[in-house]
Amino acid sequence: MEGKEISRAVIKRLPRYYRYLGELLEDGVERISSNELSEKMQVTASQIRQDLNNFGGFGQQGYGYNVQFLYTEIATILGLDRVHNMIIIGAGNLGQALANYVQFEKRGFKVIGLFDVNPVLQGVSVRGISIKMVDELPTFLKDNEVHIATLTLPKNKAPEMAEKLVQCGVKAIWNFAHTDLNLSLPEDVIVENVHLSESLMRLSYNLSNYEKEHK
Amino acid sequence: MEGKEISRAVIKRLPRYYRYLGELLEDGVERISSNELSEKMQVTASQIRQDLNNFGGFGQQGYGYNVQFLYTEIATILGLDRVHNMIIIGAGNLGQALANYVQFEKRGFKVIGLFDVNPVLQGVSVRGISIKMVDELPTFLKDNEVHIATLTLPKNKAPEMAEKLVQCGVKAIWNFAHTDLNLSLPEDVIVENVHLSESLMRLSYNLSNYEKEHK
Repeated sequence: MEGKEISRAVIKRLPRYYRYLGELLEDGVERISSNELSEKMQVTASQIRQDLNNFGGFGQQGYGYNVQFLYTEIATILGLDRVHNMIIIGAGNLGQALANYVQFEKRGFKVIGLFDVNPVLQGVSVRGISIKMVDELPTFLKDNEVHIATLTLPKNKAPEMAEKLVQCGVKAIWNFAHTDLNLSLPEDVIVENVHLSESLMRLSYNLSNYEKEHK
Repeated sequence: MEGKEISRAVIKRLPRYYRYLGELLEDGVERISSNELSEKMQVTASQIRQDLNNFGGFGQQGYGYNVQFLYTEIATILGLDRVHNMIIIGAGNLGQALANYVQFEKRGFKVIGLFDVNPVLQGVSVRGISIKMVDELPTFLKDNEVHIATLTLPKNKAPEMAEKLVQCGVKAIWNFAHTDLNLSLPEDVIVENVHLSESLMRLSYNLSNYEKEHK
């Protein structure tokens, strides 16, 4: 794999392959043809062959893909072969929901800290993690290796917090605040913005279109 | 606008334009040039002009875009000019987080019902909405016009629930379960899948790449 460039479009599709391959493994499926995978994922078989060829063309004529091998290979590419220590800043409902989501930990994303400014939440335990106050963050970041900081904060609080985190050495931010954080941070900071309301607007657009067509 | 086809790629970008235009309005900005908007959004000015030309080319040389007009126009295209009644099924942390998110209501997405199977949650009030049990759903759907059902359920429960909702006339599903619901539903049902773990995997991929480069 070393040194081989994989296109952004393929990378974007990898998590979906990973999910389907994981489901196949759970069902005890050991190998699968591009045609079967195509039907399951509703992607053309030729697209699948093209995509998976990026990883050395593991498919064999008449045999198909080795599910476990492909799953492990994609996991490595996605960086899921190691543990990422994660903190969550904003321990409201959304922050607690993310902390409670055991699937993340199964994939190697381990929540090691939960922070908030609300003193009512101080010491409240979520899956065994006691919520700390935000002013304890700098010390926490000195004492612990944190790979990812998740921000579930109001949009007016998020940019300042992100800057603080970056100053303390955090390299990756998973942002749920309703703003594009990458625009205000140094270029080498990795930001993934989750904009739930944009997803809802796409739904709303499709619904409006549907209603126009069926009026 | 009637009858004019807007490409999927442009549609996908509209919510982001809408968000930035909303911020400009909040800041009291009445008009903006494509160059200024370009700098703010980190998209090329020519991309912006091309995209916004789809809506009748509101930009005027030397004047720029009328922010309020464009904002309202995009809202109409996205179907945000009306109220969507929404229910949430799964009233755990994530469901409650979504119910508590006032920004959705501001955009016209009004939560009118919250459902769960856990009897401990029965009658618990979230923003004035009392959590109901899932077996009350069919009656609720008969008595109320529901446009969007949000599913914050485990992935093994989601497909069956989605089918039930569709049978009761629900036309649009906002799905947070870790599965692609659209594959199992009639084609005319509108599904928007939110896969949080895929977003986290993209972050992890970028982080791994960064670390490789900086080793």
